[in-house]
Amino acid sequence: GNGVPAVGLNMFGVLDATLAYGSASGGSHRVQLTNSGFNSSRLGFRGSEDLGGGLSASFWLEMGVNPDDGTGVASSTNNQQAAGGASAGSLTFNRASWVSLNGDWGSLRLGRDYTPTFTLMAGYDPFTVNGAGTTLAFTGFSIRRATAQGPYPASTSTSPGVAFPGGPVATRARASNSIGYMTGDNLGGFYGWAQYYLGENAQDGAATEDDGSGYNARFGYAAGPVDVSAAYGKTKYALLGDFRTWDVGGTWKLGNLQLNAEYVSDRAGGTTLTGGIGPAPLDGKGWMVGGSYVAGPGLVRFSYSGYKVDLGSGPVSRKAAIGYVYYLSKRTAVYTTYAHLWNRNGATSTLNGSLVGAGLASSASNGLDFGLKHSF
Amino acid sequence: GNGVPAVGLNMFGVLDATLAYGSASGGSHRVQLTNSGFNSSRLGFRGSEDLGGGLSASFWLEMGVNPDDGTGVASSTNNQQAAGGASAGSLTFNRASWVSLNGDWGSLRLGRDYTPTFTLMAGYDPFTVNGAGTTLAFTGFSIRRATAQGPYPASTSTSPGVAFPGGPVATRARASNSIGYMTGDNLGGFYGWAQYYLGENAQDGAATEDDGSGYNARFGYAAGPVDVSAAYGKTKYALLGDFRTWDVGGTWKLGNLQLNAEYVSDRAGGTTLTGGIGPAPLDGKGWMVGGSYVAGPGLVRFSYSGYKVDLGSGPVSRKAAIGYVYYLSKRTAVYTTYAHLWNRNGATSTLNGSLVGAGLASSASNGLDFGLKHSF
Amino acid sequence: GNGVPAVGLNMFGVLDATLAYGSASGGSHRVQLTNSGFNSSRLGFRGSEDLGGGLSASFWLEMGVNPDDGTGVASSTNNQQAAGGASAGSLTFNRASWVSLNGDWGSLRLGRDYTPTFTLMAGYDPFTVNGAGTTLAFTGFSIRRATAQGPYPASTSTSPGVAFPGGPVATRARASNSIGYMTGDNLGGFYGWAQYYLGENAQDGAATEDDGSGYNARFGYAAGPVDVSAAYGKTKYALLGDFRTWDVGGTWKLGNLQLNAEYVSDRAGGTTLTGGIGPAPLDGKGWMVGGSYVAGPGLVRFSYSGYKVDLGSGPVSRKAAIGYVYYLSKRTAVYTTYAHLWNRNGATSTLNGSLVGAGLASSASNGLDFGLKHSF
Repeated sequence: GNGVPAVGLNMFGVLDATLAYGSASGGSHRVQLTNSGFNSSRLGFRGSEDLGGGLSASFWLEMGVNPDDGTGVASSTNNQQAAGGASAGSLTFNRASWVSLNGDWGSLRLGRDYTPTFTLMAGYDPFTVNGAGTTLAFTGFSIRRATAQGPYPASTSTSPGVAFPGGPVATRARASNSIGYMTGDNLGGFYGWAQYYLGENAQDGAATEDDGSGYNARFGYAAGPVDVSAAYGKTKYALLGDFRTWDVGGTWKLGNLQLNAEYVSDRAGGTTLTGGIGPAPLDGKGWMVGGSYVAGPGLVRFSYSGYKVDLGSGPVSRKAAIGYVYYLSKRTAVYTTYAHLWNRNGATSTLNGSLVGAGLASSASNGLDFGLKHSF
Repeated sequence: GNGVPAVGLNMFGVLDATLAYGSASGGSHRVQLTNSGFNSSRLGFRGSEDLGGGLSASFWLEMGVNPDDGTGVASSTNNQQAAGGASAGSLTFNRASWVSLNGDWGSLRLGRDYTPTFTLMAGYDPFTVNGAGTTLAFTGFSIRRATAQGPYPASTSTSPGVAFPGGPVATRARASNSIGYMTGDNLGGFYGWAQYYLGENAQDGAATEDDGSGYNARFGYAAGPVDVSAAYGKTKYALLGDFRTWDVGGTWKLGNLQLNAEYVSDRAGGTTLTGGIGPAPLDGKGWMVGGSYVAGPGLVRFSYSGYKVDLGSGPVSRKAAIGYVYYLSKRTAVYTTYAHLWNRNGATSTLNGSLVGAGLASSASNGLDFGLKHSF
Repeated sequence: GNGVPAVGLNMFGVLDATLAYGSASGGSHRVQLTNSGFNSSRLGFRGSEDLGGGLSASFWLEMGVNPDDGTGVASSTNNQQAAGGASAGSLTFNRASWVSLNGDWGSLRLGRDYTPTFTLMAGYDPFTVNGAGTTLAFTGFSIRRATAQGPYPASTSTSPGVAFPGGPVATRARASNSIGYMTGDNLGGFYGWAQYYLGENAQDGAATEDDGSGYNARFGYAAGPVDVSAAYGKTKYALLGDFRTWDVGGTWKLGNLQLNAEYVSDRAGGTTLTGGIGPAPLDGKGWMVGGSYVAGPGLVRFSYSGYKVDLGSGPVSRKAAIGYVYYLSKRTAVYTTYAHLWNRNGATSTLNGSLVGAGLASSASNGLDFGLKHSF
């Protein structure tokens, strides 16, 4: 074995193991040693080079790792499948894979990267979309449907239906084949990030020729105690109808207390294609209020979030979460999170792998995490 | 390119390429450039952090690598499949993937790790379960069966049947989703390791809801020339019947000579489920005696091992192996191993990928390895 | 994060992102953010150890990486499938995975490596078989066939047929399970490399028992402004008929100008097996003339290449390519390449993912690359 490091090249990572318990009304419970309840587990390689004249080049390769079982996470080659590009469990650089040129004028990135809308949704969540406390504004919710709707299959079993509508979209968190521009840090607190990505289908006149292509941008202001921003993204899918999301949010620091809020408006755009959602678009709305408090080596996190779809009786899920993180060092922490979730009007969202019983119009679910996180 | 290393973060590995020849009675022979005939090939990343007050945090990520073709090794996400969690050949951190807290009181590990029973079976084998010399006590043996027995399919072709009974169990060598405790080194030579692991199925009343869950522990004493230990592990499988293994063994150093011995008692527990083994459990017994001798820069290794199943006429395989390792440096070695295997009462075990001819109640197989091993 | 490096162990890589446009006669066009238009993207780990007495040991692990989407590239476990050994998109050490012993006498390598014939074909191509300018001498070409021929399926759709005949052969670029010998650098400019590789099938009398086994060698002379060499390789396939390739080429430096040329003669050997090519072998011939010119921090590259198959009316593809690379530093460059391709007599080769229209005996295709390459 050898130690590891040198000028301009870094290896880094996070291993976060989580003992997770979940239960749901009239259904099953589950105990797992899962992962990433506080911070997403990963192994990465990155570096940069000074090119002179204020110019630099950088690269970033970052793979998702499941430390509970040693597997990795698949990527998407074309933004059309949430888990395409390798079989489930294979290691890939699914989290980030890009090369960039950087200057005072900002940064030009080419490759696979977060979508700007995701960085808003995750960045303003006190739980950073990790673990039982993950904001519903990001995940949307699950629903049981007697009839298929567009690309979403009918689902009346105890197994929850497909998440609606943001969940199944491949570009919800990241986009492959992207060209992005990020502003520099010399705009007096204003910042911006615009991204265009390609589905890479053959341009042959088929209805699906633009599937997986889209654009995504975020603009904001961060100075002193305040960070506020708005983001918009649109990805083309001929069958689902173009998917778009509008997101706003912010954080406000008051000494040791930070308050967080965000609002998400998703739309699966409707389509006239056979099997598609139909001419009417399907809308979903998510929201979250919460915050965190620094208490010595500890951090208290809390949030209340919800997601509602404009479909039938208006299924809705709401969640309250509270958590505590104790830092053993800057790099290592132990933590716990408790969350309770309410479903109304047929929504079937659950926490930590539990499943609600069949035929419940209203139900509830509990999730409890204990974990150890170490970064390097 | 850049050199690699720094404080608290290490990259390490082994590349071991093996030219392997195998032949079997009345059947086929095979020549392969395979790997890991002396030491398991791997690439890993590990590190630790001093947290103060005698406490530290560590992580370990280690992928199996097949240097002959550049592929990796799949893992298991739920301890229920021997090669689940990624398609065959994909790189995963199948060998180790855990984070731990450590103190004078010992170590708490969360993630994927060896099972304690495996460390006994492999650690006392002079060939460390690598290459043609691997002890039969670990691998069990193959058998040709006219009728299916429990989850083991009938097999009368020249292709050998499924290994019995330890071989097909996912937790034979490692367990995912494990929580382990290892004693510190301040117990006057006594040591212990206890592990609990989760299959992570939904708790929904199904017969298989606990499949893949189990526990595993090893206790021993190592001081001066002696190391002796015993280990026990049990993993739940509704169809196979719970699998358990009882193992004892030890090593004794006499100057340049070391003597090794181990005994393994496996049981597939029997089940009343349709398709299962039936109410009667199926037992297998393995044993090994052997040792090694240090001669200058060389190491001679030898062993005699066997495995027998309490089934029908009592099929049994026995193997004699001898090998020589020549160290070119501490990190680099060339080696050769020769093994001869005898099958009786219908056992069909073979060496190095050869297959015995059809219909033989007794048969034999030969294996010969030549290799180059380099670690870093 | 930690810096990365140390004595004898190196991490290295290339990330090359390419915006690629392709179009074809009467067919489709395509825009992709793809990769490796100038240099093959990769992440690798390598090292060496001085064993004393003029002897050293080395290892090399190098994975292909697609930086546009974070996926990897599958390998072949047995030289019989072009993408066997892991599902598409999984990271593997497909590019190189070997351990070696080295001395004044040369180097002995065991594992997965380039084939010597490939290093000739790629090494003498001014575009090093990357991007739109890749020499047709290496890739062969695609053809639309009304009837199946041997293992090549019939193909009359707009989708081009399988590349002929070199393209589909797993050992075209690399071989797994190889044993290679390379001469040292003390032969007055002469160099040589011979390789034997194993398909590893059971030796059981089946017609395919030697599939994937073969040998490959290259011999040449490099001194002063001249590098010339010849190479030959043969891989056994019972159904395709043994595949062999004869290659010659060279480069000649004239100050800032370098001239390149190569000639490739491929043969799928014919077979009497049902479904095979038939008793008559199928021949293909490729050629390339080109070069490069160093102009300050820039590099101009140009080539004209072609490939013709002795089948029916003699389908042939020809390509002209020109490119410019601007080095921002030794490690970082931006580049562009333009190529135009002509098909005659039913060949259907295309550039950058475009597809020619149906039923064209003659057609053309254009490819245009813009990219950013960073190595570390």
